Amino acid sequence: MNVEIISIGDELLIGQTINTNASWMGAQLAANGIKVSHVVTISDTWEAITGALEEAHARNQVVLITGGLGPTKDDITKQVLCKFFDTKLVLDQNVLNHVTSFFTKRNRPMLETNKMQAMVPEACEVLFNEQGTAPGMWFEKEDTVFVSMPGVPYEMKFLMESHVIPRLIKKYPFKKLVQKTYLTQGIGESFLAEKISGWENQLRKEGLDLAYLPSPGMVKLRISSGSGDRARVASFGEELKQMIPLYLYGEEEETLPEVVGRLLLTNEETVGTVESCTGGSIMAGLTSISGSSAYVSGGLITYSNDLKIKLAQVNPETLEDFGAVSEETVLEMAAGGKKELNVDWCISVSGIAGPLGGSDEKPVGTVWIAIDGPERKVSRKFLFGTDRQRTVQMTVLTALNMLRCEILGINIEKKQD
Amino acid sequence: MNVEIISIGDELLIGQTINTNASWMGAQLAANGIKVSHVVTISDTWEAITGALEEAHARNQVVLITGGLGPTKDDITKQVLCKFFDTKLVLDQNVLNHVTSFFTKRNRPMLETNKMQAMVPEACEVLFNEQGTAPGMWFEKEDTVFVSMPGVPYEMKFLMESHVIPRLIKKYPFKKLVQKTYLTQGIGESFLAEKISGWENQLRKEGLDLAYLPSPGMVKLRISSGSGDRARVASFGEELKQMIPLYLYGEEEETLPEVVGRLLLTNEETVGTVESCTGGSIMAGLTSISGSSAYVSGGLITYSNDLKIKLAQVNPETLEDFGAVSEETVLEMAAGGKKELNVDWCISVSGIAGPLGGSDEKPVGTVWIAIDGPERKVSRKFLFGTDRQRTVQMTVLTALNMLRCEILGINIEKKQD
Repeated sequence: MNVEIISIGDELLIGQTINTNASWMGAQLAANGIKVSHVVTISDTWEAITGALEEAHARNQVVLITGGLGPTKDDITKQVLCKFFDTKLVLDQNVLNHVTSFFTKRNRPMLETNKMQAMVPEACEVLFNEQGTAPGMWFEKEDTVFVSMPGVPYEMKFLMESHVIPRLIKKYPFKKLVQKTYLTQGIGESFLAEKISGWENQLRKEGLDLAYLPSPGMVKLRISSGSGDRARVASFGEELKQMIPLYLYGEEEETLPEVVGRLLLTNEETVGTVESCTGGSIMAGLTSISGSSAYVSGGLITYSNDLKIKLAQVNPETLEDFGAVSEETVLEMAAGGKKELNVDWCISVSGIAGPLGGSDEKPVGTVWIAIDGPERKVSRKFLFGTDRQRTVQMTVLTALNMLRCEILGINIEKKQD
Repeated sequence: MNVEIISIGDELLIGQTINTNASWMGAQLAANGIKVSHVVTISDTWEAITGALEEAHARNQVVLITGGLGPTKDDITKQVLCKFFDTKLVLDQNVLNHVTSFFTKRNRPMLETNKMQAMVPEACEVLFNEQGTAPGMWFEKEDTVFVSMPGVPYEMKFLMESHVIPRLIKKYPFKKLVQKTYLTQGIGESFLAEKISGWENQLRKEGLDLAYLPSPGMVKLRISSGSGDRARVASFGEELKQMIPLYLYGEEEETLPEVVGRLLLTNEETVGTVESCTGGSIMAGLTSISGSSAYVSGGLITYSNDLKIKLAQVNPETLEDFGAVSEETVLEMAAGGKKELNVDWCISVSGIAGPLGGSDEKPVGTVWIAIDGPERKVSRKFLFGTDRQRTVQMTVLTALNMLRCEILGINIEKKQD
């Protein structure tokens, strides 16, 4: 079983865009037991596309093509496909209706080039693209399946998840790989490995596999069983949850805003924020969840000291005596915000995101986080390094995980060592 | 002149590692006038490597290979290379000395596998790898150059910069590829294409090329000249700027927060936000820029109606009569925020991010944006579709571009049609 990805686009060849589509597809297919054997990136010219289709046809059962579809004139993919599959373009009324309603809903006029998107090769089966105007196209030629999709990542992902992967699984009998991913926050990869080494050894002894997938502020742990032993994977997962409750916040695709939101909903409690160095990012995270208005009232972005005093009732003397980035200030910010926003929980943060503004005493990356809750208040200091964007990202994740632990009554003041 | 990159490694095919090596190489080569025409990613098996070398040989003058070299896996790649170039492995004393000193300096014992790294194909010219133990290898076969490099990014980069690119430039007389990218916001790909079609036709007639690179809320336009005509590219760029000042906000890697921040700095003006559906994301964007405290004081996140009234002084009757998502409400939010935050410019937004909460009159994706400035206030309604995350992203970009236009005195009320 050979699977090939053909990525079309000059922007990929000259390094203007990194080919994350191919990685995402490779990972999704692997998770379903399907291994990609070739990824080929080419220019959107007649010769390059034709050549790639011919080579791919010779060596694969499945060929997934992305890019080269879109309303402007630099796209010739559909024409090449017609020639390759010996067919012609015909109007697809369903696609035309979809494209038309796409523009009507957005209150925008439709152009001739948009109508052209409803012209599809007669020999293909159209895969409905809910997220955009270029449809996916499924072809079969001498036992090889070819699927053409637009290169816009969220359109491609929609087509892969709703149409392509389910159809491939149905068409070909793949070996079933069982995997489950657990999400941790607030502990580095090597510390985590040390903490769970006994458990990991046992897991490997029983024939399961474990992968560490780190990203800034987070480590995902993926347990997998090549023999499809779902029960064993789940029981090791349960053990892990008991071992590291301070760090393990969720499973699979869950996010911290989702997990925290669910807890607040259950408890019928509300949350607000008073943010300095994160500039609103914590609240942006909390409100990224549909239905968050049930537990979110709003927040204060007190970037300047003046606004810390005016909006969050921080005492000017506290700022003078201890500075904006201090335990005293974040505690007053959280208390002021809790009152001003009339919420059960208030998160406050103040830090030096950098790259400028650090000192020996308070280096760039110093962040204070406080949480003022129904029963108690906590505060902690962190050092997140010199990268501005990364410090903001780490602060958001850390603050939300602190809130999760406080709501659940997990002691965050004492590290679990 | 055809150049191909062959990336070897299973981790790339299953999406565990994103192929940033190929992007980096593509960008570096493009900057030197060398355009990559194929990137091929394969598994480290005898068949896959041999097949890729044969195909690449047939269609290229230069083939750059990364990966498949290293103490644990260089067996197979080096053996395939020996077979392909009809040669055998011999000991290279210089490489052996380098590998030995590499371990001596780090006070680590050298293993037999490390000594094997000094065995190189007799037919190649060794490219000295200062950064690691696997050397680069330069082969020539029937007018095609093949270069094999390790896949570790900093080792590959060292070899490319110190050896490969200088040698290629010396060996081949490249035509210089010149490119410039212009960034637009607020106009779809097909509308943009229609608006600039006369200009685009002229550009193509003069032998330049144009690519449309869309992403949510934005379209990048890349002008390129294969003959290195920098002046022609720049003059078409200047014309474009004059044609669509409402949409064209920057060049190359610039971001809207950067562009807006620079304008505010120059004018010595300040900005604040009153955000509902974006939950702080506009302010998070503005404060992502280092030094933004010079023009940012802070913002109000008024997710609930109560906070719209309490923090931004919106009249409760306005909310009752027109609803939270209305022109009347966003204008009052902007005016209230401007006063409360004591800023020169205040952006306010209120919308239905969805996927729930829409009505016939105000469907999901309806967003009102207002800007209250030193001299006047403006407001506009948008329909951004049903995807929550995308609506937030589009709202942030649109609001920042509206602010840019207001600061520059570009009339945003009238569409430039």
